[in-house]
Parts: sequence; C-alpha cells; structure tokens
Amino acid sequence: MTPYSSLKEEAWKANKEIPLRKLALYTWGNVSAFDKDKGVFAIKPSGVPYDELKIEDMVVIDLDGRIVEGTKNPSSDTPTHLELYKCFKGIGGITHTHSTYATSWAQASKSIPLFGTTHADHCANTIVCTPFISKDAVERDYEKETGILIINTFLHPSLLGLQHEPLNPEENPMVLVAGHGPFTWGENAEKSVYNSAVLEEIAKMTFISLSLNPCLAQLPKYIVQKHYNRKHGKNAYYGQQKK
Amino acid sequence: MTPYSSLKEEAWKANKEIPLRKLALYTWGNVSAFDKDKGVFAIKPSGVPYDELKIEDMVVIDLDGRIVEGTKNPSSDTPTHLELYKCFKGIGGITHTHSTYATSWAQASKSIPLFGTTHADHCANTIVCTPFISKDAVERDYEKETGILIINTFLHPSLLGLQHEPLNPEENPMVLVAGHGPFTWGENAEKSVYNSAVLEEIAKMTFISLSLNPCLAQLPKYIVQKHYNRKHGKNAYYGQQKK
Amino acid sequence: MTPYSSLKEEAWKANKEIPLRKLALYTWGNVSAFDKDKGVFAIKPSGVPYDELKIEDMVVIDLDGRIVEGTKNPSSDTPTHLELYKCFKGIGGITHTHSTYATSWAQASKSIPLFGTTHADHCANTIVCTPFISKDAVERDYEKETGILIINTFLHPSLLGLQHEPLNPEENPMVLVAGHGPFTWGENAEKSVYNSAVLEEIAKMTFISLSLNPCLAQLPKYIVQKHYNRKHGKNAYYGQQKK
Amino acid sequence: MTPYSSLKEEAWKANKEIPLRKLALYTWGNVSAFDKDKGVFAIKPSGVPYDELKIEDMVVIDLDGRIVEGTKNPSSDTPTHLELYKCFKGIGGITHTHSTYATSWAQASKSIPLFGTTHADHCANTIVCTPFISKDAVERDYEKETGILIINTFLHPSLLGLQHEPLNPEENPMVLVAGHGPFTWGENAEKSVYNSAVLEEIAKMTFISLSLNPCLAQLPKYIVQKHYNRKHGKNAYYGQQKK
Repeated sequence: MTPYSSLKEEAWKANKEIPLRKLALYTWGNVSAFDKDKGVFAIKPSGVPYDELKIEDMVVIDLDGRIVEGTKNPSSDTPTHLELYKCFKGIGGITHTHSTYATSWAQASKSIPLFGTTHADHCANTIVCTPFISKDAVERDYEKETGILIINTFLHPSLLGLQHEPLNPEENPMVLVAGHGPFTWGENAEKSVYNSAVLEEIAKMTFISLSLNPCLAQLPKYIVQKHYNRKHGKNAYYGQQKK
Repeated sequence: MTPYSSLKEEAWKANKEIPLRKLALYTWGNVSAFDKDKGVFAIKPSGVPYDELKIEDMVVIDLDGRIVEGTKNPSSDTPTHLELYKCFKGIGGITHTHSTYATSWAQASKSIPLFGTTHADHCANTIVCTPFISKDAVERDYEKETGILIINTFLHPSLLGLQHEPLNPEENPMVLVAGHGPFTWGENAEKSVYNSAVLEEIAKMTFISLSLNPCLAQLPKYIVQKHYNRKHGKNAYYGQQKK
Repeated sequence: MTPYSSLKEEAWKANKEIPLRKLALYTWGNVSAFDKDKGVFAIKPSGVPYDELKIEDMVVIDLDGRIVEGTKNPSSDTPTHLELYKCFKGIGGITHTHSTYATSWAQASKSIPLFGTTHADHCANTIVCTPFISKDAVERDYEKETGILIINTFLHPSLLGLQHEPLNPEENPMVLVAGHGPFTWGENAEKSVYNSAVLEEIAKMTFISLSLNPCLAQLPKYIVQKHYNRKHGKNAYYGQQKK
Repeated sequence: MTPYSSLKEEAWKANKEIPLRKLALYTWGNVSAFDKDKGVFAIKPSGVPYDELKIEDMVVIDLDGRIVEGTKNPSSDTPTHLELYKCFKGIGGITHTHSTYATSWAQASKSIPLFGTTHADHCANTIVCTPFISKDAVERDYEKETGILIINTFLHPSLLGLQHEPLNPEENPMVLVAGHGPFTWGENAEKSVYNSAVLEEIAKMTFISLSLNPCLAQLPKYIVQKHYNRKHGKNAYYGQQKK
C-alpha cells in the first residue's frame, strides 16, 4: 500500500477497458488518472500489453514530469497528458487510443460535424481536429507540443488560424490530433475512456451518414441544446442521480 | 411478487437483448412491455447499465404517465413510449436504440428504401424517417412530442408535408426519428427488440447496396407482397405455428 | 435410430455453422444434406432458432417433395433445394443464408466480379446474380421457380437474355438471387456452408476493392486458372489428401 | 524432442494467432519461423485448420526446399517463404494471410499511402503493392516466382518499371501481392504475425480516411520520421527495453 494505491488502481482499471471496448490493438493506447489534491497522475507504462498489465506497473508522475512512484518507463505520451492536466483544470482522467474510425478521421485531418443526438448527448459542438503539428514543435519536444497543440486548438484557435470559437474542455471532452488520433478526457479516468468509446461510435456513425449524404447539414441547434442539457445542463433529468 | 412481476420480467429480459445483439453501447437504449388489460407498461430505468439491471429496477407506468411501481427514474424516453401505446392500438412492446447503421440513416434524415426480401419479410414499405422535430415541439415537451411526430408521420403524413400514404403501424413496426435514431415495436417486448435487430441489419445491407449502385430501384412490388405475405399474410406458411 | 439418422445429423451440424460463422440472424438461413442413393434430403425446419435446433427436428424429404420423416414444417425454401438436387447432379448439400455482404450484392442485382485469388481459389468465374424472378413465376410457385431461375441462369443463360456462357455448377458452387440473397452448394452439407462463408468474405472484399477503384479490371485469367487448379484441378497440390 | 522442437513450437504458436486476430478464415494463412544458424524454417502444413493444428504437424524445410522433418505436406506457399528467407537476410519469421482489408487493397492493386502515425509507428513508407505476376512466371514456378516478385519490388523496383526507391525489408516489413494478398515478416514468427495484424488495421484506417477525403496528401515527412524513430531509431524511447 502506498499513498497512490487507489489512484493506480483507477488508472489500471480504465486501461483494461481499452481492449474490452476494442479501442486499440496490442499496446496502442493509454489512460491516466489524476489526483488534483496530490498534484500527481498515474499512467500506463510504455509498451506493456493490456493483458499483462498489473496495478503495480502503473507509473505515478507529478506536474513537473518527475516519476514519483513506479519502476517502469511511463507511456511515451506522458508529456501530452501532463500539459493537459496543467491547463485543463476541470479534468481528472485522460485517454489516448488509436481506435479505428476516430483515427481515420484524424488521418483525414477532418473535424467531425454534429449530425445527431448521439453526438449531442456528449458534446454540443463539432469534434475538432487540430492542425498538423509544426516541424519546429516536433523537433523541440514532440509529445509536450502535442499537448500544447490541443490546448491552443481549444483555448486560442485564432492563434492557429482556426475559425471556430474557443471551446470549453469540460463541455467538449474529445479532440482529434491531425494525422495521429484521438485524445479524450473526463472527470475521472473511467469517464475519459467512456468518452473514447463514445467518440469511436460517433466517428463511425458520422462516416456512414456522410456517405449516405455528402452534403448533410449539421443537426438544428435547438435539438443539440436540448439533448446536451437533458444530460449535462442545470436541470439535467437523465439518469438516477438527481431524483 | 406484485401484479406487475411478469410484465417487469418481460421488459427486463428484452432490455438484456440490447447488449447481446449489440444494438447500443452503455445505456443508450430502452425497451418497454405493455399490458393492455391493466393499461400499464414496464420500462427500463434511466442510465442504468444493462449488466447491472435487475427485474425490480423496472419502472411501471400507467397511461397518464404516473409511476405505479418502482423506485427509480424511468427512461427519459418514457413519454415517447407512452404516446405510442396510447395511439398505436395493436402493439405490446417498444424498443429504442442507437444502433449504428439505423442511427446513421436517421442522422442523414433519409428513409430506407426497400431493396430486398430481408426487408420485405418484415415490412412491406420503405422504412420512413420523420421530419426534424420543430423548435416549438422541443420547447413544449420534447419526448412527448417525439411520440406525436412518429404518430403523425404514420397516420397523418400530409399534415407534415410528407408524400407517402398513411402507414399501418402493425404492418410497419419501425421508424427512424430524424437526427436521432430508431424506434421499433411489436406484439410484445421481445418482438420489438427483434425488430430493432432486423432494422439494424436492413440499414446496413441497404447502405452497402446503395454504395454498389446509387441509382438502385426498389424491389418489384410483387416480390415484396409475396415475401411479406408468406410470413404475415392470411395464408402465411413460414414457421411452425400454422401447420 | 432411423435410416436417416446420419443424414439428419449431417444437416443439423451444418445448420449450426450458420450462427457460428455469423451468416444469418435469428432463423434466416437453412442447410440441407442430400443422400443420392436414397434420393432424399434432410433440411432445417421452418422458423426454428439455431440454438434450439435438435437433430430430430430435421425434416427428410424425397425428390417428389414428400415428407419421409419428421414432424415439423420444413424450411419454406424446401422447393428451391429440391429443384437444385434434381438438376445439379454432382451436389450433396445446399445452403441458403442472408449473410450481410452477399445479400447486399444480391439486392443491388449485381454479379460479383473476380478480383483476387481468394475468389479464384473457390470459383473460376464471376459469381453470377440471377435476373429478378418474374411476376408469373412468383404467382405460379415462388420457391420452386426460384430453383428453376437458378438452374436457367447456370444452364440456359441465353434463355434469360444473359450474356455469360453456361456454368458448371460443380465448378461454380454459389449464386446470388436478385433482390433476395445467396445460395451455395457443395459435395456435402458441410462444404455447402463453407462456400457460404467463402462467398460472404469474397462479397465483402470485392465491395472494398471496388470502392478503392470503381474501374477495376478482373484478375488476369492465367492467375485465376493457376489458383483454381492448384486447389481443384487434376494435379491439385493444396492440402493433405493427395500426397 | 528433436533439434527443431522449439522452432516448430514458435511457428505453431504464431500460426494460432491468425484465427485469434481474425486474419484469415478456415486455413487461409500460414506462418513460418526461421532458424538462421541451422538454415531451416518450420512452416504450417497445407490445408490443416488452425484449431486442429499440433506442434508435431509443423514441417521443417531447409534452404534447398527439402523437408528435413515432418510427415505432412507443407503450405503450398512454402517456396515463397523460401525465396524471402534466402534474400532478406535480417528476417526470422514470415506470415501470409488473406485478411479482409489488406487483401482488398491487393485486389485493387493499390499501394497503401502513409496517412497517419499508426502506419509510421511500424513502417516509414507507403506499403507497396507488387505488379501482377507475369504469365511466364506463373507457368515457370508460381509460388517461387511470387517470392522473386516481392524481392524485385523491394530491391530492384526499376527492373519492374516501378518508380519508388529500393526499400529496406527490415524497415518495411510488409507488402501486398497484386490480386492476391499480404505478406509480412519480422525478426521472428511472432513479430511477423504482429505485422499482419498491424497491416490489416492500417489497411482499414487508410480505406476510411480515403473515403472521407479522396485527395488526401501523405503525412508530413517530419512526423513520419519522428514516429518511426521513437519506436525503431537509434534513440528509440518507446517500450521498456532500453531504460
């Protein structure tokens, strides 16, 4: 038992969801769980297959990027997680996968338009795709700069020449990194991997809808708002919590 | 044991078919079972995962929308089920899912043309997609109005500016709600979820056929009638019942 | 034990392959096994789910279409099987499914061109799609006429206005019935259901290849012949049998 | 126990991955494991289903193509494996499958462009498709010539009229044979079948990305190099090995 035991277990459990939900082959995905009070997160070790993964393999990292606990190399994507935790205040878990449809949209460098209530139930906007990372950024510090690219896409889109309004990461818990794949987050690790499964399904449905009608318009805004709010708004009435 | 035990078990069993048939992720679907004599239906509680669902979790609702038995919040789609039971007299079960292909057609706001006997075995017409629900209707009472939209699409299509003939819900046990997803029904809950699985398969096949030939014409009417009638007509000869 | 016990078991076992290979939902497929010497075939009863199917449920039919053994209604497609056994001399088993991709091609009323060795390993020609069955034929005797339509497509294509050469059913063990779905056959029931799984995979691959290149030409004939003959020719050298 | 026991077990184990990873139906794939010191490889017997495959069924072949151990016919693709082992010095295992998407690209006779980091993590170039094998080569010695075709596509592309630069087989462990399907290799048998699963996933993703944007440009070279090198370069930092 260590002060990080439950955090490591939360991260471990969420990583095990990746193969169960078929969100990545082999070792191609990672989840981290963040403890706001302690200022540390637990993340999957690099290159370890999910079915061999043990709780004690999880690596605990502080917000300066130092290993606080664990004997394995952390995921090579650790600096991306770190940047997001430092900047997106409300989040408690991050998931990165190479799920098939979401990655295919990222490879096509296209944002996912909002066509239906399955999408609106989870996010009230287009799921944005970042621009391609620059050559300079790759050479400087690739994984850290991937985090910064996501942050700028959300908070300073005009800096990147993007035309969308700044996005609230708590209301828009998913992004596509151009040429790479999806990152999702949530209030905890479990919710972040849930959002990865949601994104994969939305990416597949939107692909099929667009094949059926390449000129399809986005869902009317009043339906989007209704669906988003009945699950996430002030007077949300979905589920059991607020009875 | 309560007067609703067997109704709740029927609804519970049919809800368990949703993940088995891969008709929805997580909690994104619900089935209800209707008891015509008692004038009540049992429906899934809102937001409860299928693998945690117990018979006693099912919520029993009367035709005024009051909870007759159960301690959980019923599905947020309950008012849609209620409208359909009140108006479509012959039905004993309703299923709503977000199954991938059916939802993608609904998102594309396209009715599913009748291209083959797999479709004609279950429904002798195009599977219609409703128009988008109006802003007024969303603001008035979203879930109830979704039911009314389905009813008008079937019984009063010209009111909505639709060009198809009125449809008999007993012979056409499925619909797509534009921008949202499928609703299906049947003589009981089991049959309604069967129709959801049928619809998903038809939606997939029709998508592939249309990709192979975007100008494809509908199946000749005499083949449609033959297939529909050999299963559902007066002299039906499919299956074991009528030997 | 009856004189038909082993024939019924062969048919039963092959029917159980349909759900295992995901070739049909619910009860949407049937396999029969033919005993040439006795002049009878055993076939699935109509509308019975595969997981409830018992060996004693199989129905034995003679070449006049009379039930020789069994208490259930045979598959509604029985007269189609009967016509094929009477006319295609070399075959010992027939399978009909509604497998997704093969059915989608049939719905599109398109023959499957030969693009690769996976196809050539099993059949040296385009997999033909019949024309739509005529209104007269549907009214006369639908299921029997479906058999005759397949036979004419193979043996008398010019009668139907088709431009392909007559096809040897032993070398071409699969067909698409326009607007309906696939029928396959083989030297026994097991081989016929194997050919249904093969056809589904070819139908899927050909769909994807055609999406990648809509103007794709057929595989060069000399590669087709090589692959077909190394498995089925006089000097076949695939497998263990002929060492 | 024989001098080849562990080699046969390695090959057997890797062959069992083919059905687990859904890389081929029935018997449509084969893996071999090479022992450089002994100059022999163990390969799957021809036409034996994976679930009946035993370690002692594996056939050991020397570099003159003679059976050194085993009583079964080796895979009909054995001469292709043999040519590759003789020429591609660094490899210790080869896999051939008919996986759905990779085969569909091969059937379309198209190389797979590099659109994302999933691809770049495993191979820094387009995955090339060979030209169609010539009639002469088919008549001379089909399976051996398939090996030579792959080798020339990699080492002497200009001989075949191909415009790409010669490719290092150790850095590009996969190829499509036009009209046929994929071959992959690696430092051992396990790695070769891993590369088959990787190729299938890349083939699927690239298909979807191309459907989303038919004019898609390849991934910027500096991202490709970064991803390839962080896994395979001198200073690779992915995984646990090099801590």
